[in-house]
Amino acid sequence: MDFNLAKKLHRPSDTKILMLVMDGLGGLPDPGTGRSELETAHTPNLDGLARQSSLGLSIPVGHGITPGSGPGHLALFGYDPLEYQIGRGVLEATGVNFDLTVRDVAARGNFCTLDAEGRIIDRRAGRLETDQAVTMVKMLREINPIDGVSFFLEPVRGHRFVLVLRGDDLSQSISETDPQSTDVKPLSSRPLDGSSEAKRTARIVNSYTEEASRLLADLAPANGMVLRGFSMITPLPQLADVWGLHSASSAIYPMYRGLAQMTGMDPLPSGTSFSEQVNLVRDHWDAYDYIFMHYKYTDSAGEDGDFEEKVRRLEQADIVLPEVLELKPDVLIITGDHSTPATMAGHSWHPVPFLLYSRWAIGRNSATFDELSCAQGSLGTFPAKEALPLAMAHAGRLAKFGA
Amino acid sequence: MDFNLAKKLHRPSDTKILMLVMDGLGGLPDPGTGRSELETAHTPNLDGLARQSSLGLSIPVGHGITPGSGPGHLALFGYDPLEYQIGRGVLEATGVNFDLTVRDVAARGNFCTLDAEGRIIDRRAGRLETDQAVTMVKMLREINPIDGVSFFLEPVRGHRFVLVLRGDDLSQSISETDPQSTDVKPLSSRPLDGSSEAKRTARIVNSYTEEASRLLADLAPANGMVLRGFSMITPLPQLADVWGLHSASSAIYPMYRGLAQMTGMDPLPSGTSFSEQVNLVRDHWDAYDYIFMHYKYTDSAGEDGDFEEKVRRLEQADIVLPEVLELKPDVLIITGDHSTPATMAGHSWHPVPFLLYSRWAIGRNSATFDELSCAQGSLGTFPAKEALPLAMAHAGRLAKFGA
Repeated sequence: MDFNLAKKLHRPSDTKILMLVMDGLGGLPDPGTGRSELETAHTPNLDGLARQSSLGLSIPVGHGITPGSGPGHLALFGYDPLEYQIGRGVLEATGVNFDLTVRDVAARGNFCTLDAEGRIIDRRAGRLETDQAVTMVKMLREINPIDGVSFFLEPVRGHRFVLVLRGDDLSQSISETDPQSTDVKPLSSRPLDGSSEAKRTARIVNSYTEEASRLLADLAPANGMVLRGFSMITPLPQLADVWGLHSASSAIYPMYRGLAQMTGMDPLPSGTSFSEQVNLVRDHWDAYDYIFMHYKYTDSAGEDGDFEEKVRRLEQADIVLPEVLELKPDVLIITGDHSTPATMAGHSWHPVPFLLYSRWAIGRNSATFDELSCAQGSLGTFPAKEALPLAMAHAGRLAKFGA
Repeated sequence: MDFNLAKKLHRPSDTKILMLVMDGLGGLPDPGTGRSELETAHTPNLDGLARQSSLGLSIPVGHGITPGSGPGHLALFGYDPLEYQIGRGVLEATGVNFDLTVRDVAARGNFCTLDAEGRIIDRRAGRLETDQAVTMVKMLREINPIDGVSFFLEPVRGHRFVLVLRGDDLSQSISETDPQSTDVKPLSSRPLDGSSEAKRTARIVNSYTEEASRLLADLAPANGMVLRGFSMITPLPQLADVWGLHSASSAIYPMYRGLAQMTGMDPLPSGTSFSEQVNLVRDHWDAYDYIFMHYKYTDSAGEDGDFEEKVRRLEQADIVLPEVLELKPDVLIITGDHSTPATMAGHSWHPVPFLLYSRWAIGRNSATFDELSCAQGSLGTFPAKEALPLAMAHAGRLAKFGA
């Protein structure tokens, strides 16, 4: 729904909307059994809920488009993911709770291993331990400002870190130094447009990289670094302004909390398991209209190409589902930000199973919660950015359009 | 379909398209039985037709958007209801066959009951009888022009009337005097933009209201009036120009005739029952390419929250369906302008069952005419504005696109 229309139509209510995003939910049939992960998993609670819910398939970005986590989630939060794009650097910085300003350019960095000629031989420096990376980050923090631009470094996890450039006249239109392959040297950054800002930023990035390379040169196994995803923040319309929703997120992984925070969601404490997440959501239930819960492990298993593990993670979530239902949301949506079929060991473009439970849903006795059953649901196959408008309607939070 | 493309692709034919709009057709399961109104109703003729038809679900305006009657019908006539919006006042004036000019501002009025302090205590003046309202309208017609603006009043039904302001430099950008709640006084109209036209119109409306209040003050039970939906006509592209269709409407309620007339449809005499409507359509069958028939009672029953009555109205229509089929339309569409689930006692956003019968349709032996069966139809879930292009195609009235 267009945001101007949303601003006109939304109306107050005391109803509660809960959106459970099972990351990478959708799957594909195992060639041996002909059954997808969802069809294989024993999920009596999800199937029971499906019989009382409106089902459909959501298309995260567009037909044939494989989404990253950013666009997959933004769509579920009601944003057109082609219009509102978040750079990788910004996403990563937000994920470690770095408070970006509008002057900043953020980049995602990798510590890597270089050979004697300076060529990359391991892009992840042998899957560097986080505490080693923390030591290296501290070392690089000694680098002084260049041309009035200061540098902020934050470790992320393993070999990954965030670099933020802060200063005047910076641009995100510069090329990456990460060649994304081995046996080649890190690249120099180049301006991607003719602006003086892009030229200046590329020059500063290259000076910084030279300095950093000198400091890292004698270390092992991580003796180099590459940068990618240079980006600046684009302020997103806030959920409170567009939909009148006071909203919060429950996510164990920082990136999803950060993403949600950009839309105006308060981050809730999440604990370390799905069951703890539910308990902590319960503690804050009365304070919010709309709560997003993120369940990561279906995606991780899919990315690893581990069909059995993805099945197991679905079954684990199913066991906790009754605790979710005890919150008594007026609208409960269960879907994914994209598909991650274990047979593909990665994200895919396939439409994602979508379940909407509410007193105004259209149930079906023969329904189960899987790809094919959802394809026959009363919601049809629809853009994921319509998920929030559908939730709002079922929550009695949208007025009639037109006379 | 884009209108410029429609203008290029349409071609003449002697085929006939009949579109039967059962107002508020879609429903929701009765919590007791788990079956919707359509699933409950005994409709052997509709079900038989469904087996030979292409089925689908139409989305009137957008996901989660609950449409008024205006946008719901405009979509079925091929218009994007977000692009072509008709104000409530214009809709009401058209419904009583008032011939609006481009200088006019129309408003929908309610006679209401005020207490001694001028606060509204009954927005419908005890469901005023139409003949009482007619007397009051005649009294208000005595009010003289103000600043060169004349006033036209027409009774509608019960406590409702239409007020039309005619003069130069008028604007529809003024606020309503109807607070849409009780225990408060009617509001003054305010300009909604900075234009001199809006200021002038609001001032004239307030002067008119003062005068009217004086005239009504001593009457009972209706001793006040409120105005809403100030609007001017937006000329619609005509069906003849866009689609090459000579078209007519058959509707018992004036508003639907008026709405159809804006698209260029000739109003046919309709009688007072669905069966009479069919007889009168038969009399004019040869003269038109496209006829829209409106069946109101499914919506009225739904709005009243009367599940059994909606079932009965569906069954009544089903009995007349063979007479409709005897007209032998080349394309027969049966759908609704929106859903009106009896359990919600109002319009809703739910996709609407859609049936398209033609020699080029794709039937299914197991089909029935209801929400879930239509969800599994070959037309999928699609925007209602594509209904007319689909009818045109099945009627052999659209040429091939591209070489």
